Amino acid sequence: MVQRQSRAVVAAVGQASRAAWCAVPLATLALLLLAWLPFPAAAEDGYDLWLRYRPLPAQRAGELRARVSQLVMPAPSPTLAAARDELLRAFEGFLGRPPAMVDAPTSPGALLAGTPASLPLLRTLGLDLAALGNEGYAIRSLPVQGRPATVIAANTDLGVLYGAFALLRQVQTGASLDGLDIREAPRVKVRVLNHWDNLDRHVERGYAGASIWDWWKLPDYADPRYTDYARANASLGINGAVLNNVNANATILTPRYLAKVRTIAEVLRPYGIRVYLSARFSAPMEIGGLQTADPLDADVRAWWRAKAAEIYALIPDFGGFLVKANSEGQPGPQDFGRTHADGANMLAEALAPHGGIVMWRAFVYSQHNPDDRAKQAWTEFKPLDGKFRDNVLVQVKNGPIDFQPREPFSPLFGAMPGTPLMMEFQITKEYLGFATHLAYLGTLYEEVLQADTHALGAGSTVARVVTGELHGHALSGMAGVANIGTDRDWCGSIFDQANWYVFGRMAWNPDLSARDIAGEWVRMTFGDDPAIVEPVVGMMMESREAVVDYMTPLGLHHLMGRGHHYGPMPWDAGGPRADWTPVYYHRADKDGIGFDRSSKGSNAVAQYALPVARRFDDLAQVPEEYLLWFHHLPWTHRMRSGATLWEELVRHYSRGVATVARMRETWAGLAGRIDSQRHHQAATFLAIQQREAQWWRDASIAYWQSLNGLPLPAGEAAPAHPLEYYQGLSFPDAPGN
Amino acid sequence: MVQRQSRAVVAAVGQASRAAWCAVPLATLALLLLAWLPFPAAAEDGYDLWLRYRPLPAQRAGELRARVSQLVMPAPSPTLAAARDELLRAFEGFLGRPPAMVDAPTSPGALLAGTPASLPLLRTLGLDLAALGNEGYAIRSLPVQGRPATVIAANTDLGVLYGAFALLRQVQTGASLDGLDIREAPRVKVRVLNHWDNLDRHVERGYAGASIWDWWKLPDYADPRYTDYARANASLGINGAVLNNVNANATILTPRYLAKVRTIAEVLRPYGIRVYLSARFSAPMEIGGLQTADPLDADVRAWWRAKAAEIYALIPDFGGFLVKANSEGQPGPQDFGRTHADGANMLAEALAPHGGIVMWRAFVYSQHNPDDRAKQAWTEFKPLDGKFRDNVLVQVKNGPIDFQPREPFSPLFGAMPGTPLMMEFQITKEYLGFATHLAYLGTLYEEVLQADTHALGAGSTVARVVTGELHGHALSGMAGVANIGTDRDWCGSIFDQANWYVFGRMAWNPDLSARDIAGEWVRMTFGDDPAIVEPVVGMMMESREAVVDYMTPLGLHHLMGRGHHYGPMPWDAGGPRADWTPVYYHRADKDGIGFDRSSKGSNAVAQYALPVARRFDDLAQVPEEYLLWFHHLPWTHRMRSGATLWEELVRHYSRGVATVARMRETWAGLAGRIDSQRHHQAATFLAIQQREAQWWRDASIAYWQSLNGLPLPAGEAAPAHPLEYYQGLSFPDAPGN
Repeated sequence: MVQRQSRAVVAAVGQASRAAWCAVPLATLALLLLAWLPFPAAAEDGYDLWLRYRPLPAQRAGELRARVSQLVMPAPSPTLAAARDELLRAFEGFLGRPPAMVDAPTSPGALLAGTPASLPLLRTLGLDLAALGNEGYAIRSLPVQGRPATVIAANTDLGVLYGAFALLRQVQTGASLDGLDIREAPRVKVRVLNHWDNLDRHVERGYAGASIWDWWKLPDYADPRYTDYARANASLGINGAVLNNVNANATILTPRYLAKVRTIAEVLRPYGIRVYLSARFSAPMEIGGLQTADPLDADVRAWWRAKAAEIYALIPDFGGFLVKANSEGQPGPQDFGRTHADGANMLAEALAPHGGIVMWRAFVYSQHNPDDRAKQAWTEFKPLDGKFRDNVLVQVKNGPIDFQPREPFSPLFGAMPGTPLMMEFQITKEYLGFATHLAYLGTLYEEVLQADTHALGAGSTVARVVTGELHGHALSGMAGVANIGTDRDWCGSIFDQANWYVFGRMAWNPDLSARDIAGEWVRMTFGDDPAIVEPVVGMMMESREAVVDYMTPLGLHHLMGRGHHYGPMPWDAGGPRADWTPVYYHRADKDGIGFDRSSKGSNAVAQYALPVARRFDDLAQVPEEYLLWFHHLPWTHRMRSGATLWEELVRHYSRGVATVARMRETWAGLAGRIDSQRHHQAATFLAIQQREAQWWRDASIAYWQSLNGLPLPAGEAAPAHPLEYYQGLSFPDAPGN
Repeated sequence: MVQRQSRAVVAAVGQASRAAWCAVPLATLALLLLAWLPFPAAAEDGYDLWLRYRPLPAQRAGELRARVSQLVMPAPSPTLAAARDELLRAFEGFLGRPPAMVDAPTSPGALLAGTPASLPLLRTLGLDLAALGNEGYAIRSLPVQGRPATVIAANTDLGVLYGAFALLRQVQTGASLDGLDIREAPRVKVRVLNHWDNLDRHVERGYAGASIWDWWKLPDYADPRYTDYARANASLGINGAVLNNVNANATILTPRYLAKVRTIAEVLRPYGIRVYLSARFSAPMEIGGLQTADPLDADVRAWWRAKAAEIYALIPDFGGFLVKANSEGQPGPQDFGRTHADGANMLAEALAPHGGIVMWRAFVYSQHNPDDRAKQAWTEFKPLDGKFRDNVLVQVKNGPIDFQPREPFSPLFGAMPGTPLMMEFQITKEYLGFATHLAYLGTLYEEVLQADTHALGAGSTVARVVTGELHGHALSGMAGVANIGTDRDWCGSIFDQANWYVFGRMAWNPDLSARDIAGEWVRMTFGDDPAIVEPVVGMMMESREAVVDYMTPLGLHHLMGRGHHYGPMPWDAGGPRADWTPVYYHRADKDGIGFDRSSKGSNAVAQYALPVARRFDDLAQVPEEYLLWFHHLPWTHRMRSGATLWEELVRHYSRGVATVARMRETWAGLAGRIDSQRHHQAATFLAIQQREAQWWRDASIAYWQSLNGLPLPAGEAAPAHPLEYYQGLSFPDAPGN
């Protein structure tokens, strides 16, 4: 902020100079003013996220001032007022002052923003808004009343808000405001964050402090942070927030808590963000005094209908329920001999009169089912295809296991044509190094979304399943498990902000490129100096593959420490259930390694469409990045490179460590170009990551060697410690459980 | 920060005007610059605490600039560098630019700061520094080399840092810098915050978010917040921090955690703040592999000696241990048949070679002891007087029960002349409405510190016991249980910052006035507009009495909800132990109310010195504010006012509610004078407080009426609900357990 202050002075004085009120060289005065401010490069704390709106260099400021000299924007609604406030705040930041507010353009360079209703002048401009729907916007450079102007137009106030953020993103990323002709509408309808936040403010799998929802002070006091949360989400197009953990506490459905939820909903509403709640399936018993939660029981159904009516009386735009049922100990319809469809449809029926939806998670597996865990969601849900009410989304994790650094896409995508399937990505890095490893998830999301299910032939990408386009569903959704907490920088690290960002952008348009989004984010976060943008985007783009390499290369998965998922624990065979243990997943012994999911094994491959199934089943075709996910192979298996599996495995581990070392070096080279506070944080975290990458490599190699007795490939360093050392480490205090 | 920005522009332009570089009226330019910044009254988030350093009005800025035009301050140590950075930061804030740094004064208005070693010029000024000791400072206005100057001088770098903050406080509170002749040295040696912070970042009795100690990212990453924490403490003279909860986890004494503690110690060290740890008495068994923690066992003693040596090798200025032993389930020497002195002395012996101390808590009571809980600490500790090693402080809570809104001072003060007794105040408001009730604790601290123990005749105040002056102890201490968490405003509310502030100021000098300190804090926090200062100080000064009135008037105590201590629960007789229940404390029935601690009852009065004991024992003399603490009386007891006890009790409840209503009104009248974010927060919290004060009054009156069957005094409103309503409320989610 101090940085902003000093540069604002310069911007302001620059203005004075142009106005020529003063005879002496005002550039001199500007320099003198600057000299009085001794801490121009003071730290940034990350709170502003990608909405920093820092002063522009003089030339760009001049260009922008010419393009946006006036703002024509009546704001008769809270949403339009939010959009206008954002524009004023941003231009004040960019230029030192906001554009003049006028009723109609009186000079070149007006910015007009509104709907045909809020700004009737727009009706005269021949804009075709029909295709933009309820959330889209158009941004056009065109003459208005004979003068060059820029127009943000939409059918709805929310579209205008999205358009305002889009225009600001143009400025922030250094794009020109000349000749604009942008038309955007979201391709996914429900774009939500899932907060795994408990009512005691513990965040399950959270690495950024406590929950931002300060339940105790609600409903009276709405922390100003909620507004900034809403701004950040709206800037990406996120239009929903599930406030509480999927491992839900029924208390949130009691009147005392619903009043608190209402306060949050009121803060988020102007930003187009609906509030949703995770509903505990057994709530009718726990807070309703009923003896059952059987979804076919009339009293239970009436209880949920009344509960829905109670909620909508408080929160007319309430979004609906997210449900984790019959999964990892959560109650569900199967407790009463009913199906997931029975459960989901009962809730959907209660919500339907009010316009609400149910997001029903397909993340199910059972310790009583001896079948390959990777197969169980498909096995349970596939038969239910077409049996859900039309206000139900089935929410499917991107892969069949659980948010691993890499998984093949879930076979459910494409397998349930009669049911809209919602994507569930994890933004918080439960399995990718928490907040101290740099892992840009854009590449993971892109890899999954661009995967081809072949459900309706080639080109049936997961993205097209999720948008509903492939099977013609009107309802569609994408959920991201949030990485947000009370830390000042929201996410526990600056780079983790990029994962919130890329989730939101890809939820808007699943075909956006991870690299392009990384570029946007870097420019908005660190400025558009090419000497920063290029190397930082480079780091981000290789970062997730590095994690895959040093943790779980070649299709290995779920080798993390028990419970907290911190650090390597491939030797672990203990704990309450086999399918939570690494040995269940890697199946390594003296002779080989990998989970045989081929047609000769668990035959999980058969859950995919035929062309995909064949490719994964066939050793000659399976992408080597999924090799040990689908195949159990001897250590001596010959890879396409000519090296043995063992040699290649070790090389991947080492490559992961080397990539992190290179990222760290790149970042070190940016010292002085990036403010010290954020630079220091990332530099410190990269040092942690490098140490832990080495630990992952060494512990993993030591363990595999204890099984296979093979020597290290030539040139590969031995683990720093004997296996027993790594096995002796324990982290009872690791966060995020 | 936006506010600061725009005003900095004005200050800077004001400077330009004085320098006359420009022919046109620069006042006009200043107005124009201001007009470009549309949000001049933007919100403050409270992060800056009382160290806001906002721009001064032009006239005062001019005066200050003349007084501090140059800074002569070599900074060869981290502590001097911290002091110099603080001065530069502050003057840049006050004036838009810091003073010029010069090697020697070259013009009038130099500020010189240092020790005779860091700034030899000071030796020529005839300053008498001997009496200032290791932490004191002198601030003098005097000529230096023939030019008027200001000098901050001390024997130590830390004294200079304290002097720098003192000088800044002069500026912040609007005091003149003319004719300064200040000499200050702390009267208490150990001035520490006790953080009841668990290693999972839960803060016991915390109402301001999670623990600021981010153990997971330590030791690598030191959150920048630690530095600001150190600055705030140093500004008050706080010189120690116990990082972890007195209900301690031995894990903090393991090497992994000691490395984390070291990182914190390194951040705090330049600010003169030593790190202490709460030590779990059974640590030798839990992390040391021993079979016993018997303090007389040779292996146990050796373990602690080795542990102390290990700690000091990492942290050479480690402060020592705080211990809660044989209290509320904590392990202690009595588990092995030994005394508190045996336990404390064992640890003291281990720390002594390194200069460390033990703070051994006297907060003990037993459910197996049928005697009045208020008597038990005295009963256990009095016989141990004189048996502690000389690096032991016995830490005594201010009252004999537990941080109630009002208690008489603990009878231990004055009763252990052979032992230095340390004061333990609670800053966090466990029993006074958490973070949403406004209760300035300065008046509570002052009341206790100014209480006369009569230990060595009249004038033997608690303050003189705590400073060690009364009994001639070299070691002395004051502890405050911190109210600090991750909330952006640190304390959960702006007004709770005042309690951190007043604790620190009174720890420096226990004879400072609560009102004066409130005035300082208000000026530093909200500015020195008399239209703000007078009413806000007025609110603060009556605020704690209001809480006493609406919660526990006339000596009542411990009537709060079970466990969490939220809200009224005078009817509660359940739970695990009698001495945690309200009915144990109020003993009310049809005929009367109060705990008879007189000579006819538990005779707790006899634990006080005779003049005090007589006064408390005698119904005619006992201060009515302690009436029901010491006496059980009929409801019809005639008070000094002529009203009955029942009538007066009800009036107190109503008066408490009325005071809060008045505070709320006063605050509402300050809208527009105080930035909107902080004003809104306090306004919201005052509304909560008023509602809850009414609830306390109504629930209490309803309950007493259910016992005594008496009608309400004339003019008193009946409770809003029947008793059953209040009894039916439950708050399983109340924070702070």
